[in-house]
Amino acid sequence: MIQIYTGNGKGKTTAALGLIIRALGREWKVCLIQLMKKNYSYGEIKFLKKQENLDIFQFGTDKLVDPNNPDEIDITEAEDAVIKAEESIKSGKYQLIIIDEINVAVKWNLIPVDLQLALMDIETDSEIVMTGRYANSNVIEKADLVTEMLEIKHYFEKGLNARKGIEF
Amino acid sequence: MIQIYTGNGKGKTTAALGLIIRALGREWKVCLIQLMKKNYSYGEIKFLKKQENLDIFQFGTDKLVDPNNPDEIDITEAEDAVIKAEESIKSGKYQLIIIDEINVAVKWNLIPVDLQLALMDIETDSEIVMTGRYANSNVIEKADLVTEMLEIKHYFEKGLNARKGIEF
Repeated sequence: MIQIYTGNGKGKTTAALGLIIRALGREWKVCLIQLMKKNYSYGEIKFLKKQENLDIFQFGTDKLVDPNNPDEIDITEAEDAVIKAEESIKSGKYQLIIIDEINVAVKWNLIPVDLQLALMDIETDSEIVMTGRYANSNVIEKADLVTEMLEIKHYFEKGLNARKGIEF
Repeated sequence: MIQIYTGNGKGKTTAALGLIIRALGREWKVCLIQLMKKNYSYGEIKFLKKQENLDIFQFGTDKLVDPNNPDEIDITEAEDAVIKAEESIKSGKYQLIIIDEINVAVKWNLIPVDLQLALMDIETDSEIVMTGRYANSNVIEKADLVTEMLEIKHYFEKGLNARKGIEF
């Protein structure tokens, strides 16, 4: 099954993290692949690194990607993430595979949507979860379950910044 | 700050679980209060019970609540959950407090919305997260951040049942 979490609201990556917890509670093997997020100091990564049955692979750099003018390294890192995702899906090692922010990597032209669709076409018993706003319509079409997180109200509007422990 | 996760889509409770992971990674103290969910065999609870810095309190019974005709025990359990929530918020012990499914408990008349609003009025430095579909409009009005999880597509429509490790 393939699940997509998209939309402009909070809770996409955190929902995926919650699925990891649920899966680890069932003693499943889990793979977390993160695009555009090479930052092991995120609260969740600090915690998850200590867990058994979970492999974490981060791709990208510690700089923000410029959607209009991505660096070469942003592109090669995203491509490497797709290769790792393909390998993980084909390995049959994992019951749950999260590919975090892949929707954004496609939207920002770091990888073509066909690569994402090809991942979705691999025959597997693994549960696949793809996150990130801007999910491509073909991706939505192909997925089994799609949830859109809609921002109804956000304190960033009030001028507050991202807060440690909550947003990262 | 008070965050609400509502809507008919997947990911409300799981997003809250993800926030717990993020917070534990920051070595915060966390309190998880669950309404209408006395079932320690959920995958996430099995995992979370083993974690330090996290207190879990479940209320309700192991039977589903009938929204049109709740049992007396459903009501007293929900009321007890609110008392525990109030106590937890006032204690100042926790940086993050999740009150899971409280929106549904209000919608189904297990507790009056005024009790939920009163929890939101308590002065605190804790981050408060309330989940469940059907968030009351006054609750949305009072919250700092509201995300609606919208179901765009769901395999339940295809006749599949809830799956162990994924939905519970």
